[in-house]
Amino acid sequence: MEFVLASASPRRREILSHLGLEFCVVCADADETSDERDGARLVEILSHRKATAVQAALRAAGKLTEDTVILAADTVVVSPDGEILGKPRDRADALRMLRLLSDRTHSVISGICVLRGDKIVTAHEVTEVTFALLSEEIMEKYVDSGEPMDKAGAYGIQDTASLWISGIRGDYFNVVGLPVYRLETTLREQFGLSIW
Amino acid sequence: MEFVLASASPRRREILSHLGLEFCVVCADADETSDERDGARLVEILSHRKATAVQAALRAAGKLTEDTVILAADTVVVSPDGEILGKPRDRADALRMLRLLSDRTHSVISGICVLRGDKIVTAHEVTEVTFALLSEEIMEKYVDSGEPMDKAGAYGIQDTASLWISGIRGDYFNVVGLPVYRLETTLREQFGLSIW
Repeated sequence: MEFVLASASPRRREILSHLGLEFCVVCADADETSDERDGARLVEILSHRKATAVQAALRAAGKLTEDTVILAADTVVVSPDGEILGKPRDRADALRMLRLLSDRTHSVISGICVLRGDKIVTAHEVTEVTFALLSEEIMEKYVDSGEPMDKAGAYGIQDTASLWISGIRGDYFNVVGLPVYRLETTLREQFGLSIW
Repeated sequence: MEFVLASASPRRREILSHLGLEFCVVCADADETSDERDGARLVEILSHRKATAVQAALRAAGKLTEDTVILAADTVVVSPDGEILGKPRDRADALRMLRLLSDRTHSVISGICVLRGDKIVTAHEVTEVTFALLSEEIMEKYVDSGEPMDKAGAYGIQDTASLWISGIRGDYFNVVGLPVYRLETTLREQFGLSIW
């Protein structure tokens, strides 16, 4: 098998590498705009687009074989009020997002798309994350650190934000950006494959 | 402040380093045997012993100041039947533990002890972890990889075992070995300090 990760995310790459999977990374331009307002459908749509864009690019380059397995993923944070939060546009947007999450429980939804030959499977995973009360001072210091800026919902559970997260319910790695349990289950049940 | 981590665990060191805390590691021999059969009390007793053993060692070496903050932790896995699982003794013990956890939900309990001058505070955190059904083949391959041997309950949530963990409930880092949210809350509320 030749695994291709259709994602530029360093965190997804890190998770898969850590699991010992050998893969290469191929990114292709996919339209990431959508009117879809349901978080679960949105991440499935976007991961599907990423996977098919990479498939088309590999095919055009004559590098697509029947052993090529393309993995794509997309992650959003859904605020307690149902607003879909992607990456913050700027400092003010990051602060706005953190205020929405402070002292409440929100959902993180990652979609995955696995594609091999004519077979394409999408799925998603939801994890609930509970934040403690964040002071304005802490939020500003966190935003000033730069950590939130490239992350959906303006935080990374694997970094400083772990100090303010009292607990989660679901798959931790789904919050980091790749639902490894769902991915492994999908690979095994739908493709007869395994990450390990 | 001078933070001292009273633990030889590379994973605890990694978590604290990743959070940007500057600290040194000092280990001291502490009796790790106990008749205590309640997991929560046991990890508090053992982390208390580790912290006070390091305090005594630093005092004897003339290196204890009023700014020294000693952090200790201890982690156990409690099987669905209530058996306390530490590190496996050998291959057979690791397999036995994995069979106890397969297809069920168990608890991971970490105790922490924070010590500064005459003040000493212990606390613990519980996280529930749900395993999928593990085949004998997978369990044997996993034990043969060597990963389970130095870990309470014979698995590491941060490594391959993530492929078989459908979800957790609570603090992820507590399962890795250090309940960072509980530690930060204890430092802030009891000592007026912060990791970050």
